[in-house]
Amino acid sequence: MRNFLAIDAGGTSTRAVLINSSGQCLGYGTAGGGNPVSRGFDAALAALLDASRKATGGTAGEVAEVLVAMAGASLELPTHLFRDGFAELGLTGKVMIESDLLATFYSGTYHDDGLALIAGTGAVGARVVSSRLEAVTDGTGWLLGDNGAGFWLGREIVRAVAAALDGRGQATSLTLLVLAELGVTLDPGERTQGRLRAQQQLILKVYELPAIELSRFAPLVFQVKDDAVAQDIIDRAAQALTQTLLAASRAGNGPGEADGRQWQPGAQPLVFGGSVLTKGGAVAAAVVGRLSAAMPGAGGPAGISPVLVEDGVVGASVMVLKRSGIQVDAPIFARIQQSLAALRGGK
Amino acid sequence: MRNFLAIDAGGTSTRAVLINSSGQCLGYGTAGGGNPVSRGFDAALAALLDASRKATGGTAGEVAEVLVAMAGASLELPTHLFRDGFAELGLTGKVMIESDLLATFYSGTYHDDGLALIAGTGAVGARVVSSRLEAVTDGTGWLLGDNGAGFWLGREIVRAVAAALDGRGQATSLTLLVLAELGVTLDPGERTQGRLRAQQQLILKVYELPAIELSRFAPLVFQVKDDAVAQDIIDRAAQALTQTLLAASRAGNGPGEADGRQWQPGAQPLVFGGSVLTKGGAVAAAVVGRLSAAMPGAGGPAGISPVLVEDGVVGASVMVLKRSGIQVDAPIFARIQQSLAALRGGK
Repeated sequence: MRNFLAIDAGGTSTRAVLINSSGQCLGYGTAGGGNPVSRGFDAALAALLDASRKATGGTAGEVAEVLVAMAGASLELPTHLFRDGFAELGLTGKVMIESDLLATFYSGTYHDDGLALIAGTGAVGARVVSSRLEAVTDGTGWLLGDNGAGFWLGREIVRAVAAALDGRGQATSLTLLVLAELGVTLDPGERTQGRLRAQQQLILKVYELPAIELSRFAPLVFQVKDDAVAQDIIDRAAQALTQTLLAASRAGNGPGEADGRQWQPGAQPLVFGGSVLTKGGAVAAAVVGRLSAAMPGAGGPAGISPVLVEDGVVGASVMVLKRSGIQVDAPIFARIQQSLAALRGGK
Repeated sequence: MRNFLAIDAGGTSTRAVLINSSGQCLGYGTAGGGNPVSRGFDAALAALLDASRKATGGTAGEVAEVLVAMAGASLELPTHLFRDGFAELGLTGKVMIESDLLATFYSGTYHDDGLALIAGTGAVGARVVSSRLEAVTDGTGWLLGDNGAGFWLGREIVRAVAAALDGRGQATSLTLLVLAELGVTLDPGERTQGRLRAQQQLILKVYELPAIELSRFAPLVFQVKDDAVAQDIIDRAAQALTQTLLAASRAGNGPGEADGRQWQPGAQPLVFGGSVLTKGGAVAAAVVGRLSAAMPGAGGPAGISPVLVEDGVVGASVMVLKRSGIQVDAPIFARIQQSLAALRGGK
């Protein structure tokens, strides 16, 4: 029985699991952001080691391999420095860097072919074929895309409010929620230079924020009820996310190739991750509806059942076993899920 | 006969005119950015004085009043410092700060009631009633709005290209133009980590630019022919700009008030400014078409004839006379236009 470390390194937090070759999770630890692109290499490595130390409980047992799932896994990283760092934790083998997309996918399934859609602050679709990323769609960041994700939602919300305030757009309950969030009061009679004072204040306050902070307004769209503007934003988010998913599902066939590599609804898993899909139920349901309409063979919305996953930590655990030559089947997958849930529940 | 200085102070350049009370422009000068918000107060004042010195030709004649048109005219500025600065140029009266929107409006008309739409990097609509800004719509900046303007167009273009490259969106001729602008070559076979290398390069290059720089791609949308994606972007820009204009045209009537203050097509002028409207003919034509459809009484597109203006320098000249109690009529307006064109033609 060998032990492994599986690490899900995100931009703001890092999760590490000590797992043995039968899929039993033995220890779990968390730390701050572990992505070298956003945090710098030294701080990221320190976070990986911090979380790992907590997972191993400080014992100096042997660790056969380490797998780190992170965004930007395709970057050339000085992995020998990773290896040196993990030596103190008993690492005898190598450090493998894998995509966070694959880790999210494997958090929902142990199969090696399927489809994933993740919508957190950003949005990305992935087609997995034979355990590799065959196609990645969107995930192009806040300026170029990430359509339907948290930043996109927040931006559409504040744009709708700005439009409602000067009569370009429909009135919406989002207005008072956004203004309250920014500490601005709305007095319909207070105007200067042709503008409502509330709109001038909205402009001032929004440009004081770093642009990416607009994602903080995203949850508001799910709070209002019977609001046509909010519903339109949710519909357009679902439409964009469905396009991202459909583009990923079609990918992998060269010109003239048969549909053999295309995603098969029902036969292959569909994994949903990220707060917009896992917490904003309306978006996930609308994506399923649109997807089933676009795939007549799927047997309607009931034929498409996405697995919702919280993060990539189960998937990193699945991958460290797979990449070390251990076959992960249904019982092992269930053991990973259950033993990890028990460890995380205790945190 | 008194002399006046009229100054159109923009973010990147400043234009000054020496004009007499009969509307004869006597001198013209330009300098760098003269907006205190974007340039700082001292640099802005230096630019205003630099352009003014060129306009007065260095002669120490008397200047009765100075009018400066600029964005952010509603800000509280230390105008006594302006006055001290202009004393060396013979100023005997006051320095008036006015909105750049009004200056653009008056560049197209000497009437005191009408409508203006400006779409340069940003987009803003204005309803002018009795020589004052009755309503200002949009102009809310690149994150909150400026819908249909240069930054908006540039962003939609790069988003469409990002979508075309991973199959979320339709193929478009914009792709090769944008990639060429960024020095990226497109090899449809070159993929890593599930992505086209060209898309990875697009992402890298776009995020190296300051966000607001996306406006540099705007002209590309007018270069491609018979391209459905480009046409869709132009249509949506025209739709957004029409909403901005219609919201401004409706404004000024309180609840239950009659339509007396509403813009009357044909009877009151419509002024178009900014490069998206004055250089991208397709957008201006589409806005006129949509506006006439929304205003059945306007007599079709032929009943709506916008006056295109290049900047706010004619308008600043009109305003310095009006604000000094001089009535500007058709002959004086024509004299301002003609004498200024002669001076500018000689530059």
